[in-house]
Amino acid sequence: MTEATVQPRPGGRSARVRAAVHRAVGELLAEEPAEVLTIPAIAARAGVHATTVYRRWGSLAQLLADVATSRFSGDVVVPDTGSLVGDLERWTGDVATDLADPDVLALMRATIGSGPEGGCACTADRHAQLGAIIERERARGGKVPSVERAVDGLLGPLYYRAIFSGEPASGEWARGLVAPLLAAV
Amino acid sequence: MTEATVQPRPGGRSARVRAAVHRAVGELLAEEPAEVLTIPAIAARAGVHATTVYRRWGSLAQLLADVATSRFSGDVVVPDTGSLVGDLERWTGDVATDLADPDVLALMRATIGSGPEGGCACTADRHAQLGAIIERERARGGKVPSVERAVDGLLGPLYYRAIFSGEPASGEWARGLVAPLLAAV
Repeated sequence: MTEATVQPRPGGRSARVRAAVHRAVGELLAEEPAEVLTIPAIAARAGVHATTVYRRWGSLAQLLADVATSRFSGDVVVPDTGSLVGDLERWTGDVATDLADPDVLALMRATIGSGPEGGCACTADRHAQLGAIIERERARGGKVPSVERAVDGLLGPLYYRAIFSGEPASGEWARGLVAPLLAAV
Repeated sequence: MTEATVQPRPGGRSARVRAAVHRAVGELLAEEPAEVLTIPAIAARAGVHATTVYRRWGSLAQLLADVATSRFSGDVVVPDTGSLVGDLERWTGDVATDLADPDVLALMRATIGSGPEGGCACTADRHAQLGAIIERERARGGKVPSVERAVDGLLGPLYYRAIFSGEPASGEWARGLVAPLLAAV
């Protein structure tokens, strides 16, 4: 993939550069200490010019936010078990499973470390999913916690454990966060 | 502070190097994007050789963990209001105040980004303080939540909001986390 290659579809090359750069980020995170993750190193791994990366993403922070948004969107499915408690227990268990993946943790840590917007890029889709689960129950006429309370009670402990405490987060522990939240409604 | 300066107390130079390097980390975090935070940049700012920093701390991750452990130990006082609810409300409010400081957030993000142990360095003392508050109430004969539940219910939302959601964490919101935790005991 050289700069001189003739591309029949302009979008084709752009999409390939994006895929190569995203893949390079994942590879470097899996192999190297976090401080080696720089735009020149990512560009070299992806086989593109560093200037291409700077022009397209602007900074390491924006590149990692793009990779994280892409990685953490649509990867966990909003369940439909027919009850709020069932949906929330399934969903927290799935999020805990995702957060047990070392590659996920490495990407999250690097994205957080790269700038103030990094954390949001990792969890914006989780917020939206939690909001959707609660809204569906409200539409069914059920009693629901506020989304803020649900974020505090579910996403708070899940992500705290992943990033701060180093304790393993089992599916059983994660599902156990749901009952106290709903008991207080 | 050159390498050739004669030091009457050997511990004196070592302590000064440590202070200069810790201060350099804080200054660079306040001024520059996170990707500029490298050991050569820190050493240059501190006026010491990069080899001195590598020899003493080994890696950026270990240096930042040392800075974070030092910064986040003993900075929030364990209160003694005479009741568990009073102690926890005072303490969560103080932690929320600390987490509203942009310099604190920049140090936490960089420490998390530098490696897997970074998060623990930021919160190990908070865990210990929360354990101490709960243990004192238990010794008084009061009913207490487990430390695990308290971590999930208090530290989880506090640190999630600081790192992930970008929402401001008011003292009122933070103190409001205590009642649901104690209601479930």
